[in-house]
Amino acid sequence: MIKKIALLGSTGSIGTQTLQVAAEHPERFRIEALAAGTNTALLLEQVRLFKPSKVSVATREAAETLKTEVPAGTQVFYGEEGLIEIAAGTDADTLVTAVTGSMGLPATLAAIDEGKTIALANKETLVTAGHLVMSRAERKNVSILPVDSEHSAIFQCLNGEPKDRLLGITLTASGGSFRHLSRQELESVTVEDALKHPNWSMGAKITIDSATMVNKGLEVIEAHWLFGLSYDKIGVLLHPESIIHSFVEFEDTSIIAQLGNPDMRVPIQYALTYPDRIPLQANRLSLAQIGKLNFREMDFDRFPCLRMAYECGKIGGTAPTVFNAANEVAVARFLRREISFLQIEDILAQVVGRHKAEMNPDLETIREADAWARRIAAE
Amino acid sequence: MIKKIALLGSTGSIGTQTLQVAAEHPERFRIEALAAGTNTALLLEQVRLFKPSKVSVATREAAETLKTEVPAGTQVFYGEEGLIEIAAGTDADTLVTAVTGSMGLPATLAAIDEGKTIALANKETLVTAGHLVMSRAERKNVSILPVDSEHSAIFQCLNGEPKDRLLGITLTASGGSFRHLSRQELESVTVEDALKHPNWSMGAKITIDSATMVNKGLEVIEAHWLFGLSYDKIGVLLHPESIIHSFVEFEDTSIIAQLGNPDMRVPIQYALTYPDRIPLQANRLSLAQIGKLNFREMDFDRFPCLRMAYECGKIGGTAPTVFNAANEVAVARFLRREISFLQIEDILAQVVGRHKAEMNPDLETIREADAWARRIAAE
Repeated sequence: MIKKIALLGSTGSIGTQTLQVAAEHPERFRIEALAAGTNTALLLEQVRLFKPSKVSVATREAAETLKTEVPAGTQVFYGEEGLIEIAAGTDADTLVTAVTGSMGLPATLAAIDEGKTIALANKETLVTAGHLVMSRAERKNVSILPVDSEHSAIFQCLNGEPKDRLLGITLTASGGSFRHLSRQELESVTVEDALKHPNWSMGAKITIDSATMVNKGLEVIEAHWLFGLSYDKIGVLLHPESIIHSFVEFEDTSIIAQLGNPDMRVPIQYALTYPDRIPLQANRLSLAQIGKLNFREMDFDRFPCLRMAYECGKIGGTAPTVFNAANEVAVARFLRREISFLQIEDILAQVVGRHKAEMNPDLETIREADAWARRIAAE
Repeated sequence: MIKKIALLGSTGSIGTQTLQVAAEHPERFRIEALAAGTNTALLLEQVRLFKPSKVSVATREAAETLKTEVPAGTQVFYGEEGLIEIAAGTDADTLVTAVTGSMGLPATLAAIDEGKTIALANKETLVTAGHLVMSRAERKNVSILPVDSEHSAIFQCLNGEPKDRLLGITLTASGGSFRHLSRQELESVTVEDALKHPNWSMGAKITIDSATMVNKGLEVIEAHWLFGLSYDKIGVLLHPESIIHSFVEFEDTSIIAQLGNPDMRVPIQYALTYPDRIPLQANRLSLAQIGKLNFREMDFDRFPCLRMAYECGKIGGTAPTVFNAANEVAVARFLRREISFLQIEDILAQVVGRHKAEMNPDLETIREADAWARRIAAE
């Protein structure tokens, strides 16, 4: 049976790898719809290769240009409505949400309403609106399948075992580019230093988030929603090699872990083939060749942003939204060299400290909290 | 629902731990029948605690003595027929086969015929008669659940995922008491040295088998039958800490591993509660506390017995029986200080080299091959 896929964020890192996976198995996957931002050149290549029925771009102008170049019969959309059309307006079975930021949320909710399986590579969806997304998915009996390597690892380890049998789960963290530096040494690090991630080649934002451990904090909040676990059952362990991607511990003390070389195609493909698996031409992991795996207790004093993430997660409501929004602004300011690396956490602490969380927020309230946090963080 | 258990080998290491697990959860487990060898004192304690309806011991004399001491209504049996009575003569749902050596085989087959689930802690059953046991289990639709920590690990990692999606499985091996010694240094090791296993506290025979890597070889053959995998899909990896108990690799290159502190109650309990899990009061694994896990490619020149095991497994028929029987005699002779440590492998090589394997042997042929190998190994 051919799985029909709609993809938000087709020109990004997860998007292009999703299309690689689909291209390897044309007998299994058909690309129904693609949404990209501003990289219309790459999108056009993708359209010619995969022949989706609908595509969407960020702006009206880009859409107008694109219309003149796509094959006849390809419908072109744009903006937030375009995203919704791609997510929910075709007969795709599965939506891959691989846009970054909070723009994926309304489209993802629309796809859930249409009963589509969600392969989720967008952290903000659950961080900002986990209560809305998960309750709607449950009502519609829709599966939310993780694409993040850590959450996919947990999902693979659980493989249907009941979560009430868990003592807990542990997300591993490489520690990012600055893991060998003390707090004092962090004071003078540069943007260039920060962008050298030891294990994964990723975008600038997530590489900085790795170094501040904000990324792991967002993953903790995501895991809370995805697996329905309280925060005291979600741990983080420093594991510089990023070979054990995460693990679960059952109440009989048995631990099941998922391992592999860093390759996002593995979790992407698993989300697309679950509960089945199919071959992937990838580098097989050799533990003998690696020789050693190292582990260290998480140090919350060294990584205070992770502590803040737990705190915001436990508060709930709009607190994680504010944490995430403030972080986006702070990282952008660091990348523009307006602030130092350690000021990222100062800004986070200030914005989070000033926020009065509203509980059980609707989309409008979430949007307002997000905007408020961005304003304060920009000051 | 209460699970009713018959247990062969109740006074041994696995047997006593099985009873510990059962005692912790009287609401879940009832001990229907117990078989022991010659330790009637301990058996009697067990009878008083668990009140099985039937018990069995090795000899008629022991049975006569026991009869005068057990509570009224407890039936007492002895010998090979006694084992069969315990295994198949009650309404137990599950048989735990925890006797050592080949004596458990007829009783296990009898229990399969009665449709009982088999929790298998006896390697010889599959090593010598894997073809008989697995085909009969399949015909009777009976599950063979592993109790060995490595095979339980594989079983937990698979957790229902189809084995035709496997690139392979890997059994980890600590390397045993002499893992730091060269072949030359092995020439002068003593029985006392050999009995110091670094990670597990086990009986003398299996501790020596760990040091020669024969134990891992028997596990490879067992895994071949248990999981229906060809030998080229079964690997062995040196992992001194014995924390990763074994792992599976799927064709998408994703690896699922089972980890834990060395504690046989975990696999025992899993076999008894599968597919469910229940709490176990055991030491939780802390990877941070352990700090490092090490891995090394298996060295078949350093551990030639493992290569022999693979060869015998691939030949099939009576070859694994002969390998196992010759090893039992050789290890006994080493423990009696008749031969040196390295002579164990000389004896194995000679006996295996002289054997002409018979294919698809019946029980009688297996017994003859076993007796022949023991005779040659004793010379």
